[in-house]
Amino acid sequence: MNSSEFRRRGKEMTDFVADYLDGIEGRQVYPDVQPGYLRSLVPSTAPEEPDAFEDIINDVERIIMPGVTHWHSPYFFAYFPSANSYPAMLADMLCGAIGCIGFSWAASPACTELETVMMDWLGKMLKLPEAFLAGEAGEGGGVIQGSASEATLMALLAARTKATRRLQAASPGLTQGAIMEKLVAYSSDQVVATLGTTSCCSFDSLLEVGPICNKEDMWLHIDAAYAGSSFICPEFRHLLNGVEFADSFNFNPHKWLLVNFDCSAMWVKKRTDLIGAFKLDPVYLKHSHQDSGLITDYRHWQLPLGRRFRSLKMWFVFRMYGVKGLQAYIRKHVQLAHEFEYLLHQDPRFEICAEVTLGLVCFRLKGSNKLNEALLERINGTKKIHLVPCHLRDKFVLRFAICSRTVESAHVRLAWEHINQLASDLLGAEKE
Amino acid sequence: MNSSEFRRRGKEMTDFVADYLDGIEGRQVYPDVQPGYLRSLVPSTAPEEPDAFEDIINDVERIIMPGVTHWHSPYFFAYFPSANSYPAMLADMLCGAIGCIGFSWAASPACTELETVMMDWLGKMLKLPEAFLAGEAGEGGGVIQGSASEATLMALLAARTKATRRLQAASPGLTQGAIMEKLVAYSSDQVVATLGTTSCCSFDSLLEVGPICNKEDMWLHIDAAYAGSSFICPEFRHLLNGVEFADSFNFNPHKWLLVNFDCSAMWVKKRTDLIGAFKLDPVYLKHSHQDSGLITDYRHWQLPLGRRFRSLKMWFVFRMYGVKGLQAYIRKHVQLAHEFEYLLHQDPRFEICAEVTLGLVCFRLKGSNKLNEALLERINGTKKIHLVPCHLRDKFVLRFAICSRTVESAHVRLAWEHINQLASDLLGAEKE
Repeated sequence: MNSSEFRRRGKEMTDFVADYLDGIEGRQVYPDVQPGYLRSLVPSTAPEEPDAFEDIINDVERIIMPGVTHWHSPYFFAYFPSANSYPAMLADMLCGAIGCIGFSWAASPACTELETVMMDWLGKMLKLPEAFLAGEAGEGGGVIQGSASEATLMALLAARTKATRRLQAASPGLTQGAIMEKLVAYSSDQVVATLGTTSCCSFDSLLEVGPICNKEDMWLHIDAAYAGSSFICPEFRHLLNGVEFADSFNFNPHKWLLVNFDCSAMWVKKRTDLIGAFKLDPVYLKHSHQDSGLITDYRHWQLPLGRRFRSLKMWFVFRMYGVKGLQAYIRKHVQLAHEFEYLLHQDPRFEICAEVTLGLVCFRLKGSNKLNEALLERINGTKKIHLVPCHLRDKFVLRFAICSRTVESAHVRLAWEHINQLASDLLGAEKE
Repeated sequence: MNSSEFRRRGKEMTDFVADYLDGIEGRQVYPDVQPGYLRSLVPSTAPEEPDAFEDIINDVERIIMPGVTHWHSPYFFAYFPSANSYPAMLADMLCGAIGCIGFSWAASPACTELETVMMDWLGKMLKLPEAFLAGEAGEGGGVIQGSASEATLMALLAARTKATRRLQAASPGLTQGAIMEKLVAYSSDQVVATLGTTSCCSFDSLLEVGPICNKEDMWLHIDAAYAGSSFICPEFRHLLNGVEFADSFNFNPHKWLLVNFDCSAMWVKKRTDLIGAFKLDPVYLKHSHQDSGLITDYRHWQLPLGRRFRSLKMWFVFRMYGVKGLQAYIRKHVQLAHEFEYLLHQDPRFEICAEVTLGLVCFRLKGSNKLNEALLERINGTKKIHLVPCHLRDKFVLRFAICSRTVESAHVRLAWEHINQLASDLLGAEKE
């Protein structure tokens, strides 16, 4: 495909994307397909000669769409939101075209520098302590990771390297194995200190955990994968109090801040702690500025060597929404969660199982786990809306997460009426 | 931004992308900026109110482009290629719009199933042994990782888990620390068995290493990050001989197979080895098919939980190029490398430092390392072309890698004339 065909097809794809998202409400949110459905619809090998673009785009509707769970349908209330916005999609087009691999400053200076500055912008939006910002000569700074798992692993490895060096310095006779046996990582049942758990969006008390970690010289990593985006609103910022005790902090703008996956934001107070654990310097990556102290080589901050120009997505989203637009978006979601909570409150058959702080409502029918499993089966079986469950203290609980960028009060009310009706059917059938 | 504005801006961005790539030859391949250049060009905080799209797109040219190393310029001969093609960009637009997070089959069945089938397509293109394919009931199969580093780490963790379990079964009294001390990972100076090293594209002998690993019950992981794409051509397939001894194999279509970053292809012979090391099953990710044996939940195959719909890029690229188109692309690059090799051969001042097997030529002026460092400094200083060096047996060597999708014989000849001239200037200055 040459550039003139791309000019045509790119515009067709732009309309395809806009049509898909404009019409998503009319699609069944959860697919009907059975495991293995797709293999029978495609050839068993790649074609020798090129296929026509028309055939491929037709196959998207014929083969792909029937097997898609529509995460951006306003009837999708499962898991947590996955960010999706037009500005981020435009930035991704540009990111693909530039197609640089930013493993060092020299590999594409703009890629590294925009990332550092965007992480400062975002850190300021969250009112992170100054120590986490890069500024012009800070010791800390931010980096985009692919996922919260990678951020946690990086923090764990940095903590291990730091603790190992301290032990080796104190007791030079210890073997590597003996040191490994001494190391302890404390975690909650969600791993590491968490602000906004996946199950029920609960919060660990940083003001209790933090001072203990600091006193005992323990690395404190905080994961606020979902909840972190809300901290840009002053009324939710208190949930982050205590972050000043942490060594590293992470949340996912690709969940709830309109920056398409992947974009997991991680900050550290001392960049040398991360870099010390991973420094990788083959000669083909050396460049004249690297020992100047002026630049950042992000390959030392992450597991993979390669990295895309992901900060473009942040730049486009922050500028096209503005901080006020992003705050309004968070507030709308929280408001809709409270609206659903209110509807549940009016119905004595239901109970709310965890405090509704942000965009997640955990609820169940008063009664057995079996009853609630049956309710969820009916909900997901009819496929008008989509939810997933969790376990809270041995109780089977339904999670209602406000997810879609386009979800409105009307969708939440329709979802409630649907759940209400299915609950009545179920309880009626039980009585008979 | 609503969908009607996106329809307009997406089309403008399509043209912006096509204009950028059409005109890339006219841009200086390596930027003039100094460290910290970007921070002074942007505000220190995100805007409160939205900025206009026109301002943002103007800032791309004003702020971003001056700091970009143009990896897709036909005068870029540094590192290794980073894939970039129009079909992959179209697929990425669709991937962004669907925006599903495919951690389980149920989270979007099409996302998982297309990936499994595309990895089979690609495995067949490489003539991988049947044991690596998923098919309808195979024990092996493929997965898209973010990078070769992640694939290697996954292989290492799977190998460690397998070896640890074997030791625990044989000697139940051993502590975890004692087991850890017994484990050995063998590696070359490039880590793990490598086909096509970064420095000089050399190849480990799998037919020697493989049988020893099998006899000693050692996990063998093969990394062919760059070279792997060439194995789709029958004349290069012999370089992969011995893969039948491996437990896992990985290469990066995002380097040399026209599938934009990130897309690192990994296969294993026994999927249970990977899954056993990482199984993660919270209730909110459970679904009714997961214990049926019929489906794949890719979250068990990788470090991150989230994953994009990356197989769309493979599907679009394989279908729009066809296998023949992809083979022609590989062959053109190899041919251009040999053309540069031929030009070097005619000039007795230069020596070629490693066999030219694929798209990389390692060369130097006969003489000191200092002389060659000076030559590279002149080359990269004038910024008409861009190269990076490597060290081979203590010699400072220049790497000339065929990278761009649009590079032609004329560009290689211009690059040669340029290098030739700078070498003459340098050697002339030395004589004076």
